Amino acid sequence: MTTKLTSITLNTLHLEDMLNFYSLLGLEFTKNTIRKGGHAYRAQVGDCELSLCSIQSYENKNTPALQLSFEVKNLHEKVTQMKSSTKAICILDPSEMPDGKKAIVLDPDGHSVELKEI
Amino acid sequence: MTTKLTSITLNTLHLEDMLNFYSLLGLEFTKNTIRKGGHAYRAQVGDCELSLCSIQSYENKNTPALQLSFEVKNLHEKVTQMKSSTKAICILDPSEMPDGKKAIVLDPDGHSVELKEI
Repeated sequence: MTTKLTSITLNTLHLEDMLNFYSLLGLEFTKNTIRKGGHAYRAQVGDCELSLCSIQSYENKNTPALQLSFEVKNLHEKVTQMKSSTKAICILDPSEMPDGKKAIVLDPDGHSVELKEI
Repeated sequence: MTTKLTSITLNTLHLEDMLNFYSLLGLEFTKNTIRKGGHAYRAQVGDCELSLCSIQSYENKNTPALQLSFEVKNLHEKVTQMKSSTKAICILDPSEMPDGKKAIVLDPDGHSVELKEI
């Protein structure tokens, strides 16, 4: 299996409470500025990262409560298959980004899934 | 940091679609019978496990859409602190289970967080 889970992001209306909760659990967060503005609080847990981001509402379908990030092989092929055979909605077609080729797909439950080519 | 993320469970109304989606992504699921009845489909991704479980509705607050499982030290102390200083709701106090001492807490966003003593 080459697919790797690299990050879980919880977009929250209650950032302070969530930071307190997960810090008590033993996670050590660092504050990072993110592209779309605002900040993400990131903690490493094993080979995965847990991020907490503040959002103002759950109305915006592009930032659902849960975002998962995976590293995959054959990104373009996988996205094409997902779009044709599952109830996935592609919100970013495979695109070259400063840190690699990426796509963003909503899974059938509406969770945001970021895929990065390895 | 001793806290480890061991499992992410997505409770879904669309099990077949979700299995198809995450299988296309490269995850290899095995079907497991679970305590509360029904089945969980589990795939290993690195040192973490992604599980998909079918639920009938999101009405039951004890099975929210997202469940995270962590291994932690000082379980009892952590749960006591969470209950007193965050907006967490404990739905299972630290209890001896066949596979170890566990507690279940809802985080301030209502995600279910299972904690297991290491």
